Amino acid sequence: MLQELFSPSVQHALDLAGIFVFAISGALLAVRKNFDVFGIAVLAEVTALGGGLFRDLVIGAVPPAAFTDLGYFVMPLVASVFVFFLHPQVERIQGSVNVFDAAGLGLFCVTGTTKAYDYGLGLTASALMGLATAVGGGVLRDVLANEVPSLLRWDRDLYAVPAIVGSTIIVLCIRFDCLNGFTTALAVISGFGLRLAAMRFHWRAPRAWNRRSAATEAEAEKATA
Amino acid sequence: MLQELFSPSVQHALDLAGIFVFAISGALLAVRKNFDVFGIAVLAEVTALGGGLFRDLVIGAVPPAAFTDLGYFVMPLVASVFVFFLHPQVERIQGSVNVFDAAGLGLFCVTGTTKAYDYGLGLTASALMGLATAVGGGVLRDVLANEVPSLLRWDRDLYAVPAIVGSTIIVLCIRFDCLNGFTTALAVISGFGLRLAAMRFHWRAPRAWNRRSAATEAEAEKATA
Amino acid sequence: MLQELFSPSVQHALDLAGIFVFAISGALLAVRKNFDVFGIAVLAEVTALGGGLFRDLVIGAVPPAAFTDLGYFVMPLVASVFVFFLHPQVERIQGSVNVFDAAGLGLFCVTGTTKAYDYGLGLTASALMGLATAVGGGVLRDVLANEVPSLLRWDRDLYAVPAIVGSTIIVLCIRFDCLNGFTTALAVISGFGLRLAAMRFHWRAPRAWNRRSAATEAEAEKATA
Repeated sequence: MLQELFSPSVQHALDLAGIFVFAISGALLAVRKNFDVFGIAVLAEVTALGGGLFRDLVIGAVPPAAFTDLGYFVMPLVASVFVFFLHPQVERIQGSVNVFDAAGLGLFCVTGTTKAYDYGLGLTASALMGLATAVGGGVLRDVLANEVPSLLRWDRDLYAVPAIVGSTIIVLCIRFDCLNGFTTALAVISGFGLRLAAMRFHWRAPRAWNRRSAATEAEAEKATA
Repeated sequence: MLQELFSPSVQHALDLAGIFVFAISGALLAVRKNFDVFGIAVLAEVTALGGGLFRDLVIGAVPPAAFTDLGYFVMPLVASVFVFFLHPQVERIQGSVNVFDAAGLGLFCVTGTTKAYDYGLGLTASALMGLATAVGGGVLRDVLANEVPSLLRWDRDLYAVPAIVGSTIIVLCIRFDCLNGFTTALAVISGFGLRLAAMRFHWRAPRAWNRRSAATEAEAEKATA
Repeated sequence: MLQELFSPSVQHALDLAGIFVFAISGALLAVRKNFDVFGIAVLAEVTALGGGLFRDLVIGAVPPAAFTDLGYFVMPLVASVFVFFLHPQVERIQGSVNVFDAAGLGLFCVTGTTKAYDYGLGLTASALMGLATAVGGGVLRDVLANEVPSLLRWDRDLYAVPAIVGSTIIVLCIRFDCLNGFTTALAVISGFGLRLAAMRFHWRAPRAWNRRSAATEAEAEKATA
């Protein structure tokens, strides 16, 4: 029912766009980690499809969309080929990749939330699944690359908050019965815009109280370097 | 049927208590790894709910309890806030946290086993799911924090054995038709008590035969430091 | 229907053989990482059963075979005991272990593909699940051991390609309606033989274009050492 809010072909195109930009981020990390061409493709697939796969397993939508829609599988391969040959150029336009990634974040948190609600989850759980859909692929990417997920690190710009805001707008709209094309677009744009702002102004989340001694800062800086 | 052995509200209260103490252990590791406030919350949620989530996916109980019961989701957030402000105090009482963690271990191996059996798994498989429920969250916590799971390390006190004992008592009671409130409590207390004893007396499992040269010890000590 | 192609008892024996050799590879890594006896058993179980578990969760075959067939669970324990006492000898015969691992790879990609198709996945998705079944356990093994999955590393011999070839032969046979005992054996042997050849002649996949400077090579060599 909710899904009717989007024209199916529009939703599908947006999904594919989100998958493509997430796949680019996975493939770029693989190049940086010096993986071979299969490592690049695997990391691109995992980053692009991991969040949605986790969501579908949890809500019981098996087989997951990632395995029933050929386009979902092909898109990360296209991204991999693209990065394989053009990674110096792609890295130079990292800024624009981040913009696309932010767009993917805004979109995935919204589609994740509505799909979870369609499958009967409660409002809070749906918002949570929206968040997991949006950030799950990136966490899997970092785990496979043997790095601390950037979602968890204090020295990265806010990533979870924009997704939470997008998801929350959707569940509030469902709750107050005002979910429509306009409010959906508003949610996507809120997530997207907040992530852009977080990157632009380097918004960061606080670490635990009393945990900001100079020693810790220096340590963290070293770890980042 | 088996679940009737517990009063639902008692079981729920025990579940929430187990979730809370596991969440504390996740949040404390996040503080030690210098994660930001979202990293703390994510690691608390994953540690507390990961084992049960894995169990529910495997036995086909979707959507998992973690997403249908709001309390399961809120409890780790409470633990995160608690650790965020009070982590120096909480670390000082690490001993008592370990006691609660041991209680969670004893409880989760028992509830995991009975839930798996309720969903039609065999006796051995149920005991296995009990073990996975009890230790799964901790393994996910360590993987996300980019550390070798302490479950696997030889230089940590026994963790799996107490859970195996608790699970085994339950399946033996099911097999010999004597599962009741008393034997269930016995299983919880066995797991709990064995873990306490393992910590108190530093019981450790052996490493592979012929693998205890001085060089290896020194290496391991360095890795631990 | 497809499964009838194999005599069930033959298929089961082959499955157990594949599980055993994968478990050996997991247990050996655990010994090398200095894990205790439970770490060895856990890593053996995860390596042997992880790929099939992932496949069964994705295609909705719950509870997964790993939890309904006692032999699947016992086999890795046997492998663990074996490695626990005999690891110096087993390491000395690493070559023959690799041969068995290659056999497991060839077999798992074929059984994974046919099982996924039996559960209604499309041809491409089935081939993909065959690949995931064959390589999934090894990826989980490396993640738990806190290493970069060897599947992704450029300095390892081809691993994914033999599995892809085996899976592809199966789906082509399904597509052109010529799947039978002979073509199935051909697929297994192709995967097996290609992996052997990749190890023998050190076939490796290329890294990203323009990513082969002397500095990078030196770095990578250091990382490998």
